[in-house]
Amino acid sequence: MSGIETLQKSFELYFNHRHFPLSPKTLYDPLEQFLSNSGKRIRPILCLMGNELFGEIHEDSYHIAAAIELFHNFSLIHDDIMDEAPLRRGKPTIHAVHGEPTALLGGDVMMVAAYDYINKIDSRYIKDVLKLFNTTAKEVCEGQQLDMDFEKVDKVTMEEYLHMISQKTSVLLAASLQMGAIVGGSTLGNQDLLYSFGKNLGIAFQIQDDYLDAFGDPIKFGKQVGGDIKSNKKTFLMIHALETAKGDDLNELNAAIGSTHEDKVERVLAIFRSCGIDQWAKSLKELYLNKALSDLDNIAVSSNRKESLRELAYYLISRDK
Amino acid sequence: MSGIETLQKSFELYFNHRHFPLSPKTLYDPLEQFLSNSGKRIRPILCLMGNELFGEIHEDSYHIAAAIELFHNFSLIHDDIMDEAPLRRGKPTIHAVHGEPTALLGGDVMMVAAYDYINKIDSRYIKDVLKLFNTTAKEVCEGQQLDMDFEKVDKVTMEEYLHMISQKTSVLLAASLQMGAIVGGSTLGNQDLLYSFGKNLGIAFQIQDDYLDAFGDPIKFGKQVGGDIKSNKKTFLMIHALETAKGDDLNELNAAIGSTHEDKVERVLAIFRSCGIDQWAKSLKELYLNKALSDLDNIAVSSNRKESLRELAYYLISRDK
Repeated sequence: MSGIETLQKSFELYFNHRHFPLSPKTLYDPLEQFLSNSGKRIRPILCLMGNELFGEIHEDSYHIAAAIELFHNFSLIHDDIMDEAPLRRGKPTIHAVHGEPTALLGGDVMMVAAYDYINKIDSRYIKDVLKLFNTTAKEVCEGQQLDMDFEKVDKVTMEEYLHMISQKTSVLLAASLQMGAIVGGSTLGNQDLLYSFGKNLGIAFQIQDDYLDAFGDPIKFGKQVGGDIKSNKKTFLMIHALETAKGDDLNELNAAIGSTHEDKVERVLAIFRSCGIDQWAKSLKELYLNKALSDLDNIAVSSNRKESLRELAYYLISRDK
Repeated sequence: MSGIETLQKSFELYFNHRHFPLSPKTLYDPLEQFLSNSGKRIRPILCLMGNELFGEIHEDSYHIAAAIELFHNFSLIHDDIMDEAPLRRGKPTIHAVHGEPTALLGGDVMMVAAYDYINKIDSRYIKDVLKLFNTTAKEVCEGQQLDMDFEKVDKVTMEEYLHMISQKTSVLLAASLQMGAIVGGSTLGNQDLLYSFGKNLGIAFQIQDDYLDAFGDPIKFGKQVGGDIKSNKKTFLMIHALETAKGDDLNELNAAIGSTHEDKVERVLAIFRSCGIDQWAKSLKELYLNKALSDLDNIAVSSNRKESLRELAYYLISRDK
């Protein structure tokens, strides 16, 4: 079975070329630049691993992986407009440099390009893959809408947050794996287990993300710690703290949330610690990681084929940046 | 062969239902409202006629027609954001009522819903239809980008404008016809002729649109005449006027374009008339209409099957609103 780095390199070899025509430059050049400032290609790797779990990697998995990567980048470009984000992967966002209309239209055309890759795969898989791709795409949009809706309300329950995070982040990881499995000739039962593995892993990943924002090592984390707290973002940690803190702790937490002083982050973190939110978050992450690993265990292929996915799970969850 | 009204009604029966889930309401309710404020469904009718030209209307044509209508509405929602338009079909635009993020995300999810309809059709057509759908979608985005780019430059040639208009408007009409023809079992040669018919018809339609903005009867036209002139829009008429006016006419035209007085429209129209731009536009429209009709004539099916498309061509071109 191929490891993370091997698949990463192999995907880059396939994907690292121009995806759009030369003209109109005003539309396509910003997209090429955006794609070349690549992320870690986690989703394409998941797709390739999902295939390899059941058989040799088929060329169709590369097409699907490319479609997923383009879809992921489309969603980043549009999310950045909605969030008015100035930076992405350390560089100015498309809308910040080229204006909103170009970023909007560029995202649109990148989504269409994703469907072009779907259309390259073998006819016998196309309906199943397209169905899962569309369902997932709609869920990702719903997740983004819920995330924006949550900013406007005072209270979000843990259940609501979990649903939002699943839609916004986890389902695309899960679907990447399953699409690879479809091309790999997996049974439906194994596809479901692999999907569940991806979804639980995605949730564990998000808990890790929320945890690092509060308790990460600022040097390793590579960005300012406490950003979520400063902007009053509802996170796993904050929602649990508000649901469990009592008496003086709850009063102090609400007071700290309402504060604009520079000791705000410090005060919230003190409550988080006194209520054991840091340990709770670690346990919750372990819980979802174990759920994911149990799904993986239950997939009916020999254990040695699962090594790469186990490795990837630990790589994603133990990351500290 | 079915007439315009019959197909319009028959498409409404198929299409007139809820397209999105109930939740999240904040995302989906604005889309349902937008779709219920329907246009004339020209593109779906073209798709059904493209099928019926070659054989009985197949259910797949309704799926494709729905996909095209959703794509068209997606492009309107996003164009309205980019153009900062307050109204669409006489009602406030989605971004004006619900904010840009919801309009942006709503457009995205409507495009995905279009691909869901494509996925309903018979496997043997899906690759051809998806390919044409994607190519067309990209061209429509390119057309919109070029349209925005043209606003920022002083001079646009007739050739550039024709290309932009073809991408932004005509190719979707052409592709609607061709996708119907694919499902109708048409030969490639006939598909090409039908595509060309649609493209030329689209250009004739746009010339008519530009003409009416300048010379339409304000009562029949249903909106203020001269809007394009007021906003210095490059149109067939303005580009031709700037390319052909000489001496005093050209000086007066440039002066009028630079003016912000309320007699601006009147002054430009006077030059248009003195240079014969109104007659020229009528002739150019006739030229493209005749090109379209000649394409239709050349399609190798019996002439009586072409009646509905001929009727639709005259309906579109002779409209005065």
